[in-house]
Amino acid sequence: MGGLIGLDWGTTSLRAYWLDEAGAIREVRARPWGVRQLPEGGFDAALADITRDWPALPRLASGMVGSRQGWLEVPYIDLPADLQMLARNVRRLHASDGGDVHVVPGLRNPQGPDVMRGEEIQLFGALARQPALAAHSTWILPGTHSKWASVCDGAVVDFSTLMTGELFALLRQHSILGIGTSDATLDEDAFVRGVIVARDSCAAGAFSRLFSARALVLDGALGNSAVPGYLSGLLIGEEFRCRLATERFSLGAPIQLIGDDALCARYRLAAAHFDIELAESVTDAAAHGLWQIAGQIGLIQAASIRTAKEIPSC
Amino acid sequence: MGGLIGLDWGTTSLRAYWLDEAGAIREVRARPWGVRQLPEGGFDAALADITRDWPALPRLASGMVGSRQGWLEVPYIDLPADLQMLARNVRRLHASDGGDVHVVPGLRNPQGPDVMRGEEIQLFGALARQPALAAHSTWILPGTHSKWASVCDGAVVDFSTLMTGELFALLRQHSILGIGTSDATLDEDAFVRGVIVARDSCAAGAFSRLFSARALVLDGALGNSAVPGYLSGLLIGEEFRCRLATERFSLGAPIQLIGDDALCARYRLAAAHFDIELAESVTDAAAHGLWQIAGQIGLIQAASIRTAKEIPSC
Repeated sequence: MGGLIGLDWGTTSLRAYWLDEAGAIREVRARPWGVRQLPEGGFDAALADITRDWPALPRLASGMVGSRQGWLEVPYIDLPADLQMLARNVRRLHASDGGDVHVVPGLRNPQGPDVMRGEEIQLFGALARQPALAAHSTWILPGTHSKWASVCDGAVVDFSTLMTGELFALLRQHSILGIGTSDATLDEDAFVRGVIVARDSCAAGAFSRLFSARALVLDGALGNSAVPGYLSGLLIGEEFRCRLATERFSLGAPIQLIGDDALCARYRLAAAHFDIELAESVTDAAAHGLWQIAGQIGLIQAASIRTAKEIPSC
Repeated sequence: MGGLIGLDWGTTSLRAYWLDEAGAIREVRARPWGVRQLPEGGFDAALADITRDWPALPRLASGMVGSRQGWLEVPYIDLPADLQMLARNVRRLHASDGGDVHVVPGLRNPQGPDVMRGEEIQLFGALARQPALAAHSTWILPGTHSKWASVCDGAVVDFSTLMTGELFALLRQHSILGIGTSDATLDEDAFVRGVIVARDSCAAGAFSRLFSARALVLDGALGNSAVPGYLSGLLIGEEFRCRLATERFSLGAPIQLIGDDALCARYRLAAAHFDIELAESVTDAAAHGLWQIAGQIGLIQAASIRTAKEIPSC
């Protein structure tokens, strides 16, 4: 039986894909076992549990699992980097079940410097589904550490991290702005209000307006329940404001979004207020990226890699 | 016996001044009893303890003690506001020891909106010491919520809050950037490095460079122990960058700093990299401000208020 087990293993979560011999997803499992919150028994136990009852297929992992705090440190590859370069630098570890786990490196941008682990696989996975974008495209991967990246001739040539998601969580959970707020559904009107305040903050930037989330509440002009939406709008709006303030990431090229559906919806809404249109996202991009790498390093048969491109997105 | 007990009562700390009949400071006491962390027995117990063995003098308080979460809510006064307006809106509460406590209002800036409580008293206290600045001056009050303010003809005409101090604490204590860092003395070289990165981040702003505090450590280009200094430099540098990005606060006018000595030293160092010179700060500005208000509302004799201006800063 052919196929692959793909592991998208981040700081706070682990996602496992069972791909069949044609690269189609048969099953997906998720656990809250990021490299900083592993179950008892560590990496081996997490792997055993998440792949229970799956066939003994080659295993390929990406993300923070390859970091210094991960299972096996796989050094970063410097930009510009394409899929082949990533594949050439995959490393292998021996798991306690007797089998191997192959681990993909992350990317390092000497400009900055900046680093990513895991997003590069999602990006190459999405690119494999939309080969027309290989020539020139801009990518946004929202999340705890939101990444913007530029692709040129099939290689990542630039990227930069904004700590949008982490800052949102910090402000919600630990700052004066989070006092009295709830975890209710995000207020969309408040979100848009925050986006517009960020956009109109001009060169001063949205952090100069952060305290308005408190002052508006004291004024009775913003309900406590609307604060998280407003804050999210301010921070995601700041992401667009700040990216547009330089010409580093081309907005003339097609702009692709990869990530969690709900978060991507917010980014699309924010982008509209900057007159930017974001295309529909590719789902399970990490699985597609791992499949491409597996093909490159001979973990699966070459024939099935080519086939994979014709399979519709799951 | 004449004199005044002045209370500078914030969110996380309480400072009490015993001023003699000429407005000179006889004694200062500090406790970690902000309005959000009171001792058992609440406000009354805190007051009794911090004024133990002091004479029964009129008591005047400023800061978060006058907020909704304080001892007595005293509504904000809208800008433009001078010392007389603050004095006219002081309110009085009866403490359980049978005496009164007078509480000063805070200021509200309808532009923004924005609010302050406590800083306005420091500002008017420093102004009483340097009357030449009343015509036109810019004020910086660093702290958890750093304030920049404009004074014109003796009145505060504009101010704005940046959450510099709170963001620094959040990032140090709760973010990925704080991992492995220590509470050692701030690394001055790293601080300056952060200031310069912020300054040179141009319109994108220093938050676009925040993740460099992590990437530089992974690169081996920044030691873990230097991260707090670098972060502090990034955030204080961002404060100057962002204020200079607009013409809201005049840099042509004299720029005065009020606050904790160590923090003021950092602001002065950062300012130098933006070609801004900051004058020496007035110490115990809150005590001087409370003394001025006390004179306005007749808590002390008019003669001694005039005298106070001639007393050198303590």
